[in-house]
Amino acid sequence: MKGNAVVFTQGGPTPVINASWVGIVHGLRESTQVGRIIGALHGIDGILEQDFVDLKAQPAETLEACANSPASVLLSTRRKPDAEDNMRMLDVFRRHEIRFVFGIGGNDTSETLEIINKAAKDADYEIRVFHVPKTIDCDLVLNDHTPGYGSAARFVARAFMGVDLDNACFGGIYVGVCMGRHAGFLTAASAICRSKPSDGPHLVYVPERPIEINSFLEEVCSVYERYGRCVIAVSEGVETSEGMILLESLRGELERDTHGNVQLSGTGALADALIERIRERMAQTYPDESFRGRGDTLGYPQRSYPDQSEIDRSEAYGAGRFAAQMALAGNIDGSVTLKREDTADYRVRFELVELSLVAGKTRTLPDEFINSAGNNVTRAFIDWAMPLVGEMTPRPRIEMQKMAPK
Amino acid sequence: MKGNAVVFTQGGPTPVINASWVGIVHGLRESTQVGRIIGALHGIDGILEQDFVDLKAQPAETLEACANSPASVLLSTRRKPDAEDNMRMLDVFRRHEIRFVFGIGGNDTSETLEIINKAAKDADYEIRVFHVPKTIDCDLVLNDHTPGYGSAARFVARAFMGVDLDNACFGGIYVGVCMGRHAGFLTAASAICRSKPSDGPHLVYVPERPIEINSFLEEVCSVYERYGRCVIAVSEGVETSEGMILLESLRGELERDTHGNVQLSGTGALADALIERIRERMAQTYPDESFRGRGDTLGYPQRSYPDQSEIDRSEAYGAGRFAAQMALAGNIDGSVTLKREDTADYRVRFELVELSLVAGKTRTLPDEFINSAGNNVTRAFIDWAMPLVGEMTPRPRIEMQKMAPK
Repeated sequence: MKGNAVVFTQGGPTPVINASWVGIVHGLRESTQVGRIIGALHGIDGILEQDFVDLKAQPAETLEACANSPASVLLSTRRKPDAEDNMRMLDVFRRHEIRFVFGIGGNDTSETLEIINKAAKDADYEIRVFHVPKTIDCDLVLNDHTPGYGSAARFVARAFMGVDLDNACFGGIYVGVCMGRHAGFLTAASAICRSKPSDGPHLVYVPERPIEINSFLEEVCSVYERYGRCVIAVSEGVETSEGMILLESLRGELERDTHGNVQLSGTGALADALIERIRERMAQTYPDESFRGRGDTLGYPQRSYPDQSEIDRSEAYGAGRFAAQMALAGNIDGSVTLKREDTADYRVRFELVELSLVAGKTRTLPDEFINSAGNNVTRAFIDWAMPLVGEMTPRPRIEMQKMAPK
Repeated sequence: MKGNAVVFTQGGPTPVINASWVGIVHGLRESTQVGRIIGALHGIDGILEQDFVDLKAQPAETLEACANSPASVLLSTRRKPDAEDNMRMLDVFRRHEIRFVFGIGGNDTSETLEIINKAAKDADYEIRVFHVPKTIDCDLVLNDHTPGYGSAARFVARAFMGVDLDNACFGGIYVGVCMGRHAGFLTAASAICRSKPSDGPHLVYVPERPIEINSFLEEVCSVYERYGRCVIAVSEGVETSEGMILLESLRGELERDTHGNVQLSGTGALADALIERIRERMAQTYPDESFRGRGDTLGYPQRSYPDQSEIDRSEAYGAGRFAAQMALAGNIDGSVTLKREDTADYRVRFELVELSLVAGKTRTLPDEFINSAGNNVTRAFIDWAMPLVGEMTPRPRIEMQKMAPK
């Protein structure tokens, strides 16, 4: 089959999402099967509006600068196509002789691609449709991990090493809220730089386990008693055992969007509410101490700070390039997945699976990555995550052999 | 004079504060004048409690790992010595034959050192006292800039490049709150990675200029009208023209600590309050649009994320080493300051000034660094700040020549 290709990015961007479209461009540009490589701006909105840029015409330095940079220069959307959108997209594909469609995104994007694919089949217009995975949440099924996770996890791991060293300077309690509505992979990454029990985060709460505010407060107090300080990582999406979002259970009913979702990112409310409750609890046990409590929400830098994990960038690029190779190889569609080889040295291979197997499904942290108390991660998690985040500065330690007082 | 040396760090740590004590150790350790090099833990608390570690005994790799890492491994305190503390400290100096005292900190620390120095003079106990500057706020007088600022500014600059690229993906309004109670240097750094007028942050608010919520909202709306988005950097310490902290004017009276200071860091309240007001204002002009507003508080990663500016680390090290040389050179005390040479290539020299000239004084952003509207920084600021933040990944751009629709 011969024709043009269109590439788009969708959903929340990652620190390495550009590397994937650069991989696609590199994979397609030498082929005589593919004419133009079109970048649609703002995801499928760009297809609908024919808001197109020529990706083949980009100079090599541009491609390199993009692959090295966070967020998507092709921009994004959260739109899901309806029947009318599908008709319009097929019309655009025909006008531009588009036969190869590449969507870089999460499980919503694989769903979108499945819908486009079905609409094209129904209209008897032949296309090849590829989903290239990306998500900082690491929540795509059938993947060992997803491009974007390693760099976001690197940011969270390093940010927590820094705030933990900082917290040690004065003592007190620090709460850091991480992204992750349903999956705790990113919050779990807060623990990667620990090497001693006294290193924070001392407690890690993920959405896979219910949180009870009273046991939470007791756990915090008990760490504080031991170390004079406590650093806590919490997922924005943690819920009570009644299935209520923690923030809502602390603050009362929250605003919801048209899909019924509460806005969790882009607000510091959860960290503030937790610090308030910790402050009250600490005042009971230590009524005479002035207490230092600080809450941060790591926010959008988690998915956009320009500090890529090199292995993550190279896998994001590889996933795009693999999709391009598959597109040229024959009449196949699918979703690219990353499998970890069972070898001593870390290695991944790419595999194509049917779109329907990935579309709309959510993966969460496996049980063996969470401790039995549900307030920390296990060694198995650290071993799994370590190769994904790239090289890390070691945590500094001085010889603490104290000099004798005189 | 011969004797032992004590080194301590005080106040909020920085990403390069360890490099300064490593510089002091390297500067002193070959001298026969200095016996032991003692690290006091938790600032002057460590002197009072004789909570000491042996810095000369640290292996070379430890010193290197510390110099490369954020936050202070010598820990910190905010305590100011009173008369009783001074007596106890002098007693400890005598017992440990301490003659050289090095405090790494901000203007509070130089004040503390001045107090210690005076107490020693009054007691006829000869010491040499040195203040080595550090502060991410860059608010020490007589300094072109202070060690610690370059790395914190690097984090803020890069975080804003990332969140701005991220914001461009979906559009909408993003508020990022930066540290800085009285000085806007760190917030101003948010603008360093901009290169086109459409690049964010589009508006920058610093404590040196009063902020009026209504003009603020009009400025935000006007940027949004032009670009479909707006990224805003705000200092945590911005005040209204009545001298009221902005957060207090939006939210009502806030808790204050025993010094009458409102806690500004470690809470997301200001970003949340601003987004709430922007949301209300946007609903007036765009009643039918669903509006995307996100607020982040960059928080403690600003001063502790392990992404040092190399020039900053080398200056932090140099400032410590210079203090050590001065201590060995003769009977002098003082505060190390950084002066920028008037040369084509960026270069600094260190100069010793009297402690009293730095102690307790606060420097703020010069007028020529703030635009006349008081809502942005000038080119002069960028030119001044650029050499301090180290090498930066350039902002990615693709050729946006649109393809013709068909």
